[in-house]
Amino acid sequence: MSNALNPIYVTAFIEATQNVFQTMLRQDVSFGKPVPGRLPHLQNDVSAIIGMTGDVVGTVVLSLPAATASKIVECFVGSPIDIKNDDFADAVGELVNMISGGAKAKFDGQQVRISCPSVVIGQGHTVQQPSGSVCISIPCESSCGGFSVDVSIKKVGVSQASEPAAA
Amino acid sequence: MSNALNPIYVTAFIEATQNVFQTMLRQDVSFGKPVPGRLPHLQNDVSAIIGMTGDVVGTVVLSLPAATASKIVECFVGSPIDIKNDDFADAVGELVNMISGGAKAKFDGQQVRISCPSVVIGQGHTVQQPSGSVCISIPCESSCGGFSVDVSIKKVGVSQASEPAAA
Repeated sequence: MSNALNPIYVTAFIEATQNVFQTMLRQDVSFGKPVPGRLPHLQNDVSAIIGMTGDVVGTVVLSLPAATASKIVECFVGSPIDIKNDDFADAVGELVNMISGGAKAKFDGQQVRISCPSVVIGQGHTVQQPSGSVCISIPCESSCGGFSVDVSIKKVGVSQASEPAAA
Repeated sequence: MSNALNPIYVTAFIEATQNVFQTMLRQDVSFGKPVPGRLPHLQNDVSAIIGMTGDVVGTVVLSLPAATASKIVECFVGSPIDIKNDDFADAVGELVNMISGGAKAKFDGQQVRISCPSVVIGQGHTVQQPSGSVCISIPCESSCGGFSVDVSIKKVGVSQASEPAAA
């Protein structure tokens, strides 16, 4: 396996992120050059994590500094929410859910399912994927601040991916 | 939906956790009474998160204090590993992978897939599931210290009648 993510997936996540922010937050996002691994300059205080299974297996992480997350949640729901409130995590989880759902719809006929989002809150935490997995970080800049969409997915063999026929 | 997790699932995770610890770490785990939500007394420094999709959708989180995680990893791989080393996250991720894989095999013929594990490291972070999801925390005590297996899953897509009957 190459250590670069298929550009089709990168484009799908960029387009889905742009679409979610334009539709739900009425703002544009500008994207930097995707880099392998994590963005070293970005403090990770809030992470919304969602798993993908099926023809494509892996993980998508929406990683945000606390200040950016607070502004995005306020813009998304229309009023400020305390970071310790359950509604805060729900809002961030819904964003990664919409981004991942939008991206997988662009995966060109592949059967992919997404799990429920988990939202991690804790100052300066890290989120690591298994060694050897291909992870790229897409730098995003919005009027609420910078964040990243970190994608670690791979296409799996048909024999592994195909589900047994329904009885 | 009830706010209690089907006991079949709880038993599956208890048995799978016991099996992984006995097989891979040569130690027994004792289990407390599963409680809704999180264990309030447990400091969460290391979380291994894995998603489930298919007939059952949700998330499994192995939550550990840093000291317990370090002892468990040392016992698992045979030598101490620094918490910042990639191998540390790989080891904790592999544990949640084995526990979740073992548990889903006990889900009584249901088709379930698990995603790749994500491992969060950060002192005193929280991991939240969507509001309204049913989450239970299984308290675990090992000779390496206490930890929890937090399960938030639900059966989807098929009529309730086909949900495995509680023993």
